[in-house]
Amino acid sequence: VTSATPSGRTVGVGVLGCGSVGSALVGILNDRAGPIAVQAGARLSVVGIAVRDPGAERAPHVPRDLLTSDAKGLVSDPAVEVVVEVIGGLSPAGELVRIALEAGKPVVTANKALLASPEGVELRTLAGERGVDLLYEASVAGAIPLVRVLRESLTGEHVRRVMGIVNGTTNFILTKMGEQGADYGEVLAEAQALGFAEADPTADVEGFDAAAKAAILAGVAFGYDVADTDVYRQGITAIRAVDVEVAERFGYVIKLLAIVERTDDGSLSVRVHPAMLPREHPLAGVRGAFNAVFIEGEAAGELMLYGQGAGGLPTASAVVGDLIDAVRNRLAGAAAPAPDRQPPRLLPASELLTPYFVSLDVVDRPGVLAAVAAVFGDHSVSIRSMEQEGIGDEARLLFLTHLAREGSVRETLEVLERLDVVERIGAAIRIVGDPG
Amino acid sequence: VTSATPSGRTVGVGVLGCGSVGSALVGILNDRAGPIAVQAGARLSVVGIAVRDPGAERAPHVPRDLLTSDAKGLVSDPAVEVVVEVIGGLSPAGELVRIALEAGKPVVTANKALLASPEGVELRTLAGERGVDLLYEASVAGAIPLVRVLRESLTGEHVRRVMGIVNGTTNFILTKMGEQGADYGEVLAEAQALGFAEADPTADVEGFDAAAKAAILAGVAFGYDVADTDVYRQGITAIRAVDVEVAERFGYVIKLLAIVERTDDGSLSVRVHPAMLPREHPLAGVRGAFNAVFIEGEAAGELMLYGQGAGGLPTASAVVGDLIDAVRNRLAGAAAPAPDRQPPRLLPASELLTPYFVSLDVVDRPGVLAAVAAVFGDHSVSIRSMEQEGIGDEARLLFLTHLAREGSVRETLEVLERLDVVERIGAAIRIVGDPG
Repeated sequence: VTSATPSGRTVGVGVLGCGSVGSALVGILNDRAGPIAVQAGARLSVVGIAVRDPGAERAPHVPRDLLTSDAKGLVSDPAVEVVVEVIGGLSPAGELVRIALEAGKPVVTANKALLASPEGVELRTLAGERGVDLLYEASVAGAIPLVRVLRESLTGEHVRRVMGIVNGTTNFILTKMGEQGADYGEVLAEAQALGFAEADPTADVEGFDAAAKAAILAGVAFGYDVADTDVYRQGITAIRAVDVEVAERFGYVIKLLAIVERTDDGSLSVRVHPAMLPREHPLAGVRGAFNAVFIEGEAAGELMLYGQGAGGLPTASAVVGDLIDAVRNRLAGAAAPAPDRQPPRLLPASELLTPYFVSLDVVDRPGVLAAVAAVFGDHSVSIRSMEQEGIGDEARLLFLTHLAREGSVRETLEVLERLDVVERIGAAIRIVGDPG
Repeated sequence: VTSATPSGRTVGVGVLGCGSVGSALVGILNDRAGPIAVQAGARLSVVGIAVRDPGAERAPHVPRDLLTSDAKGLVSDPAVEVVVEVIGGLSPAGELVRIALEAGKPVVTANKALLASPEGVELRTLAGERGVDLLYEASVAGAIPLVRVLRESLTGEHVRRVMGIVNGTTNFILTKMGEQGADYGEVLAEAQALGFAEADPTADVEGFDAAAKAAILAGVAFGYDVADTDVYRQGITAIRAVDVEVAERFGYVIKLLAIVERTDDGSLSVRVHPAMLPREHPLAGVRGAFNAVFIEGEAAGELMLYGQGAGGLPTASAVVGDLIDAVRNRLAGAAAPAPDRQPPRLLPASELLTPYFVSLDVVDRPGVLAAVAAVFGDHSVSIRSMEQEGIGDEARLLFLTHLAREGSVRETLEVLERLDVVERIGAAIRIVGDPG
């Protein structure tokens, strides 16, 4: 029963940014100073907190005298041995992280945008070359200890696929659409009112946020240097209430997934898109703003990690875990082992093999099904099941396909769209995680 | 793109036991030798595999010339720097682990029975005193990286409660009871036929296996030295098909949970019992033989880890993660930080506060409800809702209580059992995880 720190040392921490994460971090470092010191092997002392406006209003627990507007000065301060970057965005965060790494100071960051950018790929390489820790557990899925599990628990593992619900806003919207039968626009407005979606929701609903996380996951789980611009991306704005309802009737739930997958030829598919998951799939039960990541490994089998993907406290909790690691490594004179990085060999989106759900509104007259089915057949897209339902003068044809080449499905849809008998293509959604 | 091991070193590993886990481990160490060497910082070389009968039939990938019946000799072999114990059971595993630790050799074990025994508590203390790693990720929930997450990601975290489905056999049985409306005995026979339950299922269905894991979790999550004999334990043999069905009607799912919880007065409640979980709770969706552990922390919020809780390969996968850690630590001249251990201050089971579901079969005549309700009232057990249904000449009364003292509920049930109008007490199941 001791809170003594083995080294008797104090390690100075420079905190860049004091928004919801930075403020929560300062609180935890204060409230849990004893246990954190035991784990880290040294007391952590916040040397300074860099903010744009030191005069702005802050939570009462943030010490006024530690605030500074000189971020570069703080990073370079000899008293700062470890840097925490929770500013977010590319600039000035990128430059500050670079200065720290070049000075041999470990960096803990929650900045997904930076890490997934081409600059972030460079920074990860720089950290590896210098043997300095650049830790970023908090950048993907908030409090969920995904990076650590992939890096440490599964290091010996051949991971086949990682797929996750990594954006709380879109999961909140899709969950509500399912529960209320309400349309996208309606639920988006509700999410905005509740603070679950931004006034400009583009980054979330168009999948940019999830794509950045997919890029980071590709590096952590597979050792590939992938930038967010390399990620195939499709958002949820085209999903309609009727799609959610029909999916449910077929035993599926629609989720926005970030997927990183090793294909048989050794290339990597990194993508973000809405997907239909079987109702029994563990990811299908993830509701509201929660995140979860499902990992399929050769020996470990199926693993899922679930938790809060955002928020000041949960994110700060992940930062603290990394900070303890960085300090322990620094005291031991080591850095976390740099993953074995490889140049990406990415599967073109058109080469992906996936089953599809396709919903077509067609004219209700004889011969239509034959005409439509012929188009599928012409493009080697094989149909697993079909259902027809009447909607006024029209009919709706609902198809589930077998495994099909993505490019062939797109061509099929283009031809179908030009057919006279096809009024509109309602939905074309990939199916993921089907047993068998 | 390098598989060079920074140290150029080879570390000798002694493997004790070659059942399904040991055999899978030898396979992984061979198949994934390159990536494992990169992560561990040294090549791992299996020096010997101790088995009872070196002549017995083995998987073809197990090298015959490494087999030995001299386990003590292997542990003491100077070429063995790290020991993996996958024999299971108390003896001779306990003695072998002790010899290794006393010789300063790190031990990786999957042996929950040993770790949760009073001897295991001693061994953990010994490892801490000697500064030698005793790592046991594989002992709780198989491939799920629970120990690492609790020890490393959540080190800075104030954990309030950990609760899990940590026994695959009982979860398989309860899932099937729910899906098929079948009774316990029927489903047990099916589980035995499918290999999901042992011929003598006592260790699983009476909660002994889960209790050992709860004891280990108390140490990992809270730093308390708890042995399995300290754990309050109740199995699933009394659960009937009708209880599962009624629970479902009320919006609940019945699961066998291992729960470790910090109470308001700072004592710890460590227990295993069937519990009714709200259908929306993440643990409620865990089906079949899968395991999952739900963690509630102050900053991190709700976390859940899900995966395969048993099986040779998944368990070996967890052993490999620990082995890499042990080797890295050995090369760095450090051990994983020993958790801040405390003497246990356990909450007596009778002092637990929990809501209850109680089902009573009663004589169907006027005044019965008043008589029954009076007994609840006399013991300060407050009723949240009641439902009555007719069953022939009898009636069934279904009660949900507010938070009640465990001891008071037991007294209530004892008095009810003696009432003339009460034919039998059908079920008394604790409710866990209700919102609000």
